[in-house]
Amino acid sequence: MTATPQSVGLVRAQRAEFDEPLALQGGAVIPRYELVYETYGTLNASHSNAILICHALSGNHHVAGFHTHEDKYPGWWDNMVGPGKPIDTDRFFVVGVNNLGGCHGSTGPSSINPETGRQWGSQFPVVVVNDWVQAQARLADRLGIERWAAVIGGSLGGMQALRWTVTFPHRLRHCICIASSPRLSAQNIAFNDVARNAILTDPDFHGGDYYAHGVAPKRGLKLARMLGHITYLSDAGLGGKFGRTLKSGGYQFSYGTEFEIESYLRYQGDRFADVFDANTYLLMTKALDYFDPARHFGGSLSAALSATSAQFLVASFNSDWRFAPERSQELVKALLAANKQVAYAEIDSVHGHDAFLMTDEAYVRLMHSYLNRVAKEVGV
Amino acid sequence: MTATPQSVGLVRAQRAEFDEPLALQGGAVIPRYELVYETYGTLNASHSNAILICHALSGNHHVAGFHTHEDKYPGWWDNMVGPGKPIDTDRFFVVGVNNLGGCHGSTGPSSINPETGRQWGSQFPVVVVNDWVQAQARLADRLGIERWAAVIGGSLGGMQALRWTVTFPHRLRHCICIASSPRLSAQNIAFNDVARNAILTDPDFHGGDYYAHGVAPKRGLKLARMLGHITYLSDAGLGGKFGRTLKSGGYQFSYGTEFEIESYLRYQGDRFADVFDANTYLLMTKALDYFDPARHFGGSLSAALSATSAQFLVASFNSDWRFAPERSQELVKALLAANKQVAYAEIDSVHGHDAFLMTDEAYVRLMHSYLNRVAKEVGV
Repeated sequence: MTATPQSVGLVRAQRAEFDEPLALQGGAVIPRYELVYETYGTLNASHSNAILICHALSGNHHVAGFHTHEDKYPGWWDNMVGPGKPIDTDRFFVVGVNNLGGCHGSTGPSSINPETGRQWGSQFPVVVVNDWVQAQARLADRLGIERWAAVIGGSLGGMQALRWTVTFPHRLRHCICIASSPRLSAQNIAFNDVARNAILTDPDFHGGDYYAHGVAPKRGLKLARMLGHITYLSDAGLGGKFGRTLKSGGYQFSYGTEFEIESYLRYQGDRFADVFDANTYLLMTKALDYFDPARHFGGSLSAALSATSAQFLVASFNSDWRFAPERSQELVKALLAANKQVAYAEIDSVHGHDAFLMTDEAYVRLMHSYLNRVAKEVGV
Repeated sequence: MTATPQSVGLVRAQRAEFDEPLALQGGAVIPRYELVYETYGTLNASHSNAILICHALSGNHHVAGFHTHEDKYPGWWDNMVGPGKPIDTDRFFVVGVNNLGGCHGSTGPSSINPETGRQWGSQFPVVVVNDWVQAQARLADRLGIERWAAVIGGSLGGMQALRWTVTFPHRLRHCICIASSPRLSAQNIAFNDVARNAILTDPDFHGGDYYAHGVAPKRGLKLARMLGHITYLSDAGLGGKFGRTLKSGGYQFSYGTEFEIESYLRYQGDRFADVFDANTYLLMTKALDYFDPARHFGGSLSAALSATSAQFLVASFNSDWRFAPERSQELVKALLAANKQVAYAEIDSVHGHDAFLMTDEAYVRLMHSYLNRVAKEVGV
């Protein structure tokens, strides 16, 4: 732990149990579930200063700070959330929650199914973005938050923020949707399907019930992560960081790890496969594929957004080819067509899709200034 | 077989045996080997009208025509090679050859190693583009071809054409290098490494000696092909062809094949894994990674090309993001800096990298007109 004056410091995860069944969009019902979450900052008397942070594919509730003094790294968005930071915990009450189906403490495939006494595994239902939003709303109820000052997310997190505006138009003032997309393209789905196939065809997958076999489909999950990782970065970014640099002086003429980029990717893949649950990965990619708010509005995104009442900040990064600026622009155009208030920024960055987790100066300034405005609006 | 007047019709593969050992760049020596090849058209009296077609990752010697009347599909470049076609077999003597290490008849990992009497498997050495060029040159000797009218290739095939100009500057008049690159980027290598990892970690791989076990790492090879396939196509091309179309009317909330793009990719992957050899796939991706003619010239591509004497046609496709136009432009700039004759075309196409196998009108016209010029130059 290297806490700075701008760190929220030591934080503790909390649990909320929900005994009311949750009917999922896919038809299944989760009889009861738990969500693990963290909060930073203080909820003001009028409960107007709450911000929800929605996580992306591999994220979780641990957004900022450290769990122990021994932690090497802080939460995944510590560079954006803390005292004096853009999402300023001196002003806002910030909530991070691990989504339903996750593998960081909330009820998911690796949790015990109360009806069988065994881990859910293949029996855990497929969830969609709107299911998460429903579950998050119940957590908001529990915390006494009637209306979020803002719901914020990048990538899959941005889809949740967007979905909040459709499902609960009056429960958020601002939607901040970063490096996201109103729906995946065929190419996006194709990459997800390769990742899923890597997991599904791993002999250690056992139809999703690998827990009972004491194994995990780590080979498949590693491949999925390696592939995902490439799509999170830009060609230029990878070129600048790794180029064609070799680990040793010359070609080895073998199939071992040879280029620095291979070494990096394999390491990232192994590390991820050791800590993440493959069933959760499958479920997250499916939620991405299914997200398409226009679907029940004859394909019209502006019709889908017509009943929203939030103000929108949409941001994209010019080197992001996974969710390219065009996808954000599509959202902005639909919002404008629906006469909504929207600010849009396309930010110069070499970091590709991952830029939403980085600190390119223009990005940090944008978030600072927009959230400053939100703070003033809610009187903090 | 649906032969048209423009088809070379029924063709027969031929074999050439080479008993002189071939010393490979990686240090290994292939004691003797066979190459399988096809020829179309007639070699003229002065042997000036021969064209070599170099194949890409999954290609082979069967470039045009049909092997039997029952063949459903012709050779892989039948749309470009035949009577009256751009690579006109009424004028040119066209040679297609399966590269060393291939799995379509030439000596490769699945061939019998004469020293052991068993299939090479893991003992087959890693080959590089220049090794292929050396082997192709011996075939040229055998066929009595001192100087090719042109060496032509797309993608990895273009790298071979380019390498010919460096290794044997006086043995080709023209180099036609399509949708290729003078060296892979970190992103290119990264994708190849995921593909290799899929194969290498497949439990049926057995360290490359799966033949002896009566199995094949088909799961891994399928994943590799699915991933490769995505990178051969453009985002817009996939969007136009598949979009978000579902196989059935609605979401299934399961991990089965659901979107049309998934069905297409999985089918392509399965089909490929049934007919292609995983060891050859590994070897081909490694040849791609290693290709870097500038490497022994202090990183200067123009220095590497300074001794070439061929005329160059370099072509790229605007939607190709695997080997983007910038990579071809890099080659063109180096050729210009080295005072070489080069024509360059960037062709509008929605087909991405695969466009080099397609028949976009501007592409066909370009090839027609350039090869017409080559024909006149060699007097056919």
